[in-house]
Amino acid sequence: MKRTQLLTKTTKNLPADETSKNAQLLIQAGYIHKEMAGVYTYLPLGLRVVEKIKQIVREEMNKINSSELIMTNLQPADRWQETHRWSDEVVDIWFKTRLKDETELGLAWSHEEAVINMMRGQITSYRDLPVSLYQFQAKLRNELRAKSGIMRGREFVMKDMYSMHATAEDLATYYDQAIEAYKRVYDRLGIGDDTYVTFASGGAFTKFSHEFQTVCEAGEDILYVHREKNIAVNEEVLEEACEELKIDKSELEKVKSAEVGNIFNFGTDKSKDMNFTYADDQDQHQHVYLGSYGIGITRAMGVIAEKFSDEKGLIWPKAIAPYQIYLVSIGEQGSREADKLYQTLTDQGVEVLYDDRDIRPGQKFADAELLGIPLRITVSDRLVEQSKYEITNRKTGENSMLTFTELADTLGTHV
Amino acid sequence: MKRTQLLTKTTKNLPADETSKNAQLLIQAGYIHKEMAGVYTYLPLGLRVVEKIKQIVREEMNKINSSELIMTNLQPADRWQETHRWSDEVVDIWFKTRLKDETELGLAWSHEEAVINMMRGQITSYRDLPVSLYQFQAKLRNELRAKSGIMRGREFVMKDMYSMHATAEDLATYYDQAIEAYKRVYDRLGIGDDTYVTFASGGAFTKFSHEFQTVCEAGEDILYVHREKNIAVNEEVLEEACEELKIDKSELEKVKSAEVGNIFNFGTDKSKDMNFTYADDQDQHQHVYLGSYGIGITRAMGVIAEKFSDEKGLIWPKAIAPYQIYLVSIGEQGSREADKLYQTLTDQGVEVLYDDRDIRPGQKFADAELLGIPLRITVSDRLVEQSKYEITNRKTGENSMLTFTELADTLGTHV
Repeated sequence: MKRTQLLTKTTKNLPADETSKNAQLLIQAGYIHKEMAGVYTYLPLGLRVVEKIKQIVREEMNKINSSELIMTNLQPADRWQETHRWSDEVVDIWFKTRLKDETELGLAWSHEEAVINMMRGQITSYRDLPVSLYQFQAKLRNELRAKSGIMRGREFVMKDMYSMHATAEDLATYYDQAIEAYKRVYDRLGIGDDTYVTFASGGAFTKFSHEFQTVCEAGEDILYVHREKNIAVNEEVLEEACEELKIDKSELEKVKSAEVGNIFNFGTDKSKDMNFTYADDQDQHQHVYLGSYGIGITRAMGVIAEKFSDEKGLIWPKAIAPYQIYLVSIGEQGSREADKLYQTLTDQGVEVLYDDRDIRPGQKFADAELLGIPLRITVSDRLVEQSKYEITNRKTGENSMLTFTELADTLGTHV
Repeated sequence: MKRTQLLTKTTKNLPADETSKNAQLLIQAGYIHKEMAGVYTYLPLGLRVVEKIKQIVREEMNKINSSELIMTNLQPADRWQETHRWSDEVVDIWFKTRLKDETELGLAWSHEEAVINMMRGQITSYRDLPVSLYQFQAKLRNELRAKSGIMRGREFVMKDMYSMHATAEDLATYYDQAIEAYKRVYDRLGIGDDTYVTFASGGAFTKFSHEFQTVCEAGEDILYVHREKNIAVNEEVLEEACEELKIDKSELEKVKSAEVGNIFNFGTDKSKDMNFTYADDQDQHQHVYLGSYGIGITRAMGVIAEKFSDEKGLIWPKAIAPYQIYLVSIGEQGSREADKLYQTLTDQGVEVLYDDRDIRPGQKFADAELLGIPLRITVSDRLVEQSKYEITNRKTGENSMLTFTELADTLGTHV
């Protein structure tokens, strides 16, 4: 993509009410646009990052035999009444609306009830189990406050997965597979080392649920971690968990963190509420076991923007960067050579954002840093004379002068 | 994908209130699930079709230099009040909801106002124009009735594109390019021959807008067509259009049709309402010209399901079929051979749905037909003995017995 064809410009203007670092950086670099508090448009650059995160999550969910589908925002009341989660007093984040005939509808903030309502028509026998399904969906949540940029959205992309099982053991096994899949996701997103599977409150259903918490200054949660033992506990269950883990509170380090994933073992509670059963091999009706597994896709993007950035701008991990290379041309000869290099690289499928604008080199360099593309390649008149390309690593700041062959080697492309 | 791993089964049970053919077929074949009237979940098979249609549209929009982004469902009132489209009396399909502090929000049924509100912060000079952007987004529309299955949804996927220009001429040129891009889309979807660019009412903005109408018995519109002259006119503007086209009404054939696309030339009307201007080369403020271009992705899928189906089920065009091949195994030896063929084909990237279930052949054949996969390959004990594969064309019903080499030739795969 050429910068002259890119829809958006970088900007120094920020919405007056935008106080979060992730949204400030992403707005300045042209990744997102703020519609209102907690509601953001994903511009072409931002959409590329979202899609890359989704693809990583998709591959890992497919590996544990989950099937992708897409459910709906509009939710009839009946199925949510069965589990007593329709009431605004029980669930205080519903957005609701009305049909012309005044029938009240909800806008989905999660999909357990919708999934059970659908699958109780599909699953009849133990032979139909286990089943796992997931979606990427724009969830709507009526948050009282939304001041954390894309880390807490009123409208945000979530991967939500639901698994259904004949027995508690089968659910437990899958639940562990899901934990491993989630770990692979965070590793691939570049936040694996700072992300902990934590003991969190299970609400009414289980003693503990599991959260995936990433150490992050901008996070809204408090975590107690033991880095060597790889243990992390949420503040709300600290006493209980320490007892359970036979660990003293004083051994734990207190850090701020952001929840990037949350998984629940619902057991048969929801299936009992909704009469979701299967016939076992004795033809007896049994309740289905349900697991629920969420990853906030756009929240993860916000956490990564917070963690991997400096005073100059964003620093994307390679796996989710919108482009791999920011190509800067300087001067007439430099531009001719950069045109050629752009063609060569894009022909080979390398994702290049080519700053072909007629502006000062300093502005191009500043944009390269603000946008956070992993590698910058500079082609100038002076470098062309030396038959050299300058390559700069956004993360380390390392600079090298390479011949074309060395450049191709570095990028893993063919000359 | 193996049928034993597919989330959904085919079914004979239909929701009592489902009267449309497209939804009946798609529910029976396991492509969609009905949440409520006009609101459908897209199951794994259905999602594959949706994604294929989206990819075709994406490629054609990219070809006319439009950039993909994703905007939001939640819409603040202010920008819609500027154009007087916030009122439920002016726009009678709004779904609205409220924040905790009682602020009213809309749920997007279109995005012109959102686009202008965003872009008036980006576009300052004539050098920033033209610009075109598009998205695939789940639109919400509060339809009074929703009885046409996925052809008229209260929640549905739409591709909406918006283009901004410095002059009327530049918009006109792009508008024509968009018409050509739309024609390529419908050709690739397999409905090109039956889809007409029609003269429709332009509302307050222009004398005529253009609709893309596909001849379809289940359609809600009436079209007057002249097949040789490739002219089509909507009923509502028949008199006027005949005059304009110098054609007699009696020459036109009356058919039922479904709108699969709609494009509008808004001129500078909306920009004037919203004070959306750029500085021209004399540094004078001028209003931006706006075009708006929609394709109902899920509606197109519904139209295709209606048109390409028979009493046995769906008949997908190759380009959007969820899988290219429905592989049926019969008997023990047949299963072993089918296992191998499944591996060989999937390794080469051929999309195969493999019916590996332990059920009667007749049930497998019936499912192959109901699902509408373009080619069925049968591998039975008897065929293995003859070293033959049976290949059946869903559309034509043609049957051939092929050797492995002939099969590979037919499929364009390597042996």
